[in-house]
Amino acid sequence: MWSIEDSQMMSLAIELAQKGMYTTRPNPSVGSVIVKDGEIVGEGYHIRAGGPHAEVYALNMAGIDAQGATAYVTLEPCSHYGRTPPCAKALIEHGVSRVVIAVTDPNPEVSGRGIAMLREAGIKVDVGLMTTEAMQVNLGFLKRMEKGLPWVTVKLAASLDGKTALSNGVSKWITGPEARSDVQRLRARHCAIVTGVETIIADNPSLNVRHSELGSLANQLAPAEIHQPLRVVVDTHARLGTELNLFKQATPVLLVSAKPYPEEVQAAWPEHVSQQILPTVNGRIDLTALLGLLGKTCNSILIEAGATLAGAVVNQGLADEIVLYQAMKILGGQGRNLLALDDFQAMSDIPRINLIDERKVGKDTRLTLRVSK
Amino acid sequence: MWSIEDSQMMSLAIELAQKGMYTTRPNPSVGSVIVKDGEIVGEGYHIRAGGPHAEVYALNMAGIDAQGATAYVTLEPCSHYGRTPPCAKALIEHGVSRVVIAVTDPNPEVSGRGIAMLREAGIKVDVGLMTTEAMQVNLGFLKRMEKGLPWVTVKLAASLDGKTALSNGVSKWITGPEARSDVQRLRARHCAIVTGVETIIADNPSLNVRHSELGSLANQLAPAEIHQPLRVVVDTHARLGTELNLFKQATPVLLVSAKPYPEEVQAAWPEHVSQQILPTVNGRIDLTALLGLLGKTCNSILIEAGATLAGAVVNQGLADEIVLYQAMKILGGQGRNLLALDDFQAMSDIPRINLIDERKVGKDTRLTLRVSK
Repeated sequence: MWSIEDSQMMSLAIELAQKGMYTTRPNPSVGSVIVKDGEIVGEGYHIRAGGPHAEVYALNMAGIDAQGATAYVTLEPCSHYGRTPPCAKALIEHGVSRVVIAVTDPNPEVSGRGIAMLREAGIKVDVGLMTTEAMQVNLGFLKRMEKGLPWVTVKLAASLDGKTALSNGVSKWITGPEARSDVQRLRARHCAIVTGVETIIADNPSLNVRHSELGSLANQLAPAEIHQPLRVVVDTHARLGTELNLFKQATPVLLVSAKPYPEEVQAAWPEHVSQQILPTVNGRIDLTALLGLLGKTCNSILIEAGATLAGAVVNQGLADEIVLYQAMKILGGQGRNLLALDDFQAMSDIPRINLIDERKVGKDTRLTLRVSK
Repeated sequence: MWSIEDSQMMSLAIELAQKGMYTTRPNPSVGSVIVKDGEIVGEGYHIRAGGPHAEVYALNMAGIDAQGATAYVTLEPCSHYGRTPPCAKALIEHGVSRVVIAVTDPNPEVSGRGIAMLREAGIKVDVGLMTTEAMQVNLGFLKRMEKGLPWVTVKLAASLDGKTALSNGVSKWITGPEARSDVQRLRARHCAIVTGVETIIADNPSLNVRHSELGSLANQLAPAEIHQPLRVVVDTHARLGTELNLFKQATPVLLVSAKPYPEEVQAAWPEHVSQQILPTVNGRIDLTALLGLLGKTCNSILIEAGATLAGAVVNQGLADEIVLYQAMKILGGQGRNLLALDDFQAMSDIPRINLIDERKVGKDTRLTLRVSK
């Protein structure tokens, strides 16, 4: 069904889509290539929400050459008027004769309707080329559209014996500067960072994305283009004070607790700090409720927390991916554990994880693990 | 000083030496190549103690072609009469005109004397080509000759969060069959395996080398060629009973304790079981004394023990190398720790280790780490 040219062009479209992964949210990252008589006449990708979609960039580049051409799109073209006119309409108007789509849109407003609109206009539409590969670019968007929940990545850093700190809490630095720069890039592509009150009290982190630490990404992403993630702190008992590095950067902070903060504390908050009361389960913030809340606006969230909160996310089956930075160090049994999980009694009870990527980041190793549900 | 041919030939000699690593002990593994007019006329390696040395195999193969040839040897040729005549003499008698040596012999009986004997006979001797590479093949022999102590490899297997078992002790299986087969090969090249009484009580292991589980090595090493390692159990309080899988295989077992076993227990031991009383430090067997004892006969020992004994070896600075099999699993904070070490208060206090090799073994990762002293 698919020609070699089809696969090559869709690969290119997926590569283009990947360029948007730091800037399109809450929109999906989409790439498009337009091919006529074996030559690429147009290409483009969605850059940011509110701006033109991938197909529009590619059609504008192709111009009159789009007539009778084949358009490759990583995600089903939209059929509705949002902040931009429907892309299916643009493809029809430019006279494209065939559209190849990797993934159908899971958004109930769009699903299948873009395809139908194209077919009604007499355009040949082929669906399902490199679907799995194209889905990887939009795991968060796809999950949120289907389940109303964000994709959850748990970031961990530990020694070879799975310790995150010495017994006295000292953890600077287990991993090297390259791994810490990689974490900055990881933050830059997530909509929100979730941490626990203990981490804030112990480390007083800023949890922002620092352009100077983006390494290889710094050239590609100007400081003004960074989407600073929402910083979320789970603080069940509303214990946090007001003198925090978290508050110094004027991008949103959300404090999640089971009860309101004292009024004098709230009065001292900068404008970009807000709170949300959520229900508890066994005395702790209901994490499913928290994910539901964040899923209203966020495709993907990054958990950067200690063993208790990160462990609860994994233990409750809420983690989709684990990114583990592993330092070639041994801290010994007195060190702090990576994840607090249930006291499993059988090997069949442990989380099911699969390694999907492993690479060196400086002297450390980064393991990316997908959690099976 | 060294030509490309020199480096190529010494590389080959080192490769040949590696072939002996499972069978030469307590002798070193040595390889030799004889080259005349750019052609290899002889090659050989030491196969087993009591058998011909590498140079003799190579000279026999070269025959009359050895006259005026260059001999490459990974270790200084011996100058003394042991179970075989001195190799330096054989090289002289065959009329070799140049000898290239990677490593001088650390054995006080030999060091420098082989070289002197060759030079006195008018042979050109060049020393020091690929010394570091050639040393890797005989780390155990070299350490024992210099310090009277064996090379100590600590074998560990754990999950990504550094756990060796669930809280209830269940550990079958964290790593996969390929990793367990790799452990068999690791055992096969060590002179002794050291474990603790807790491991024996918990798992009742045989701790032998099983030909059927040697994997890729099974073709290279016939069952009769396997040197079954001495199995050593550290059992400070002489608690071990007599019904053990360890005793079922008729190769030596050494029980190390601070006091003699009860006479009725000793009476029930098979012939291949013996005991050794050693002093204690802080109520535990003095590990330096144990290494000194094993260093009388063993070039290298493998520690296959739980967190306490393996941790003590690392903690006391006695480990040279750590081989860690890491399974792509997460067991959680309730699981058992990999290594009991001191309660370090600063990052500068943790063991200094360097990754020297990393590879996939089935689905697991094997990390080889060298410990700095």
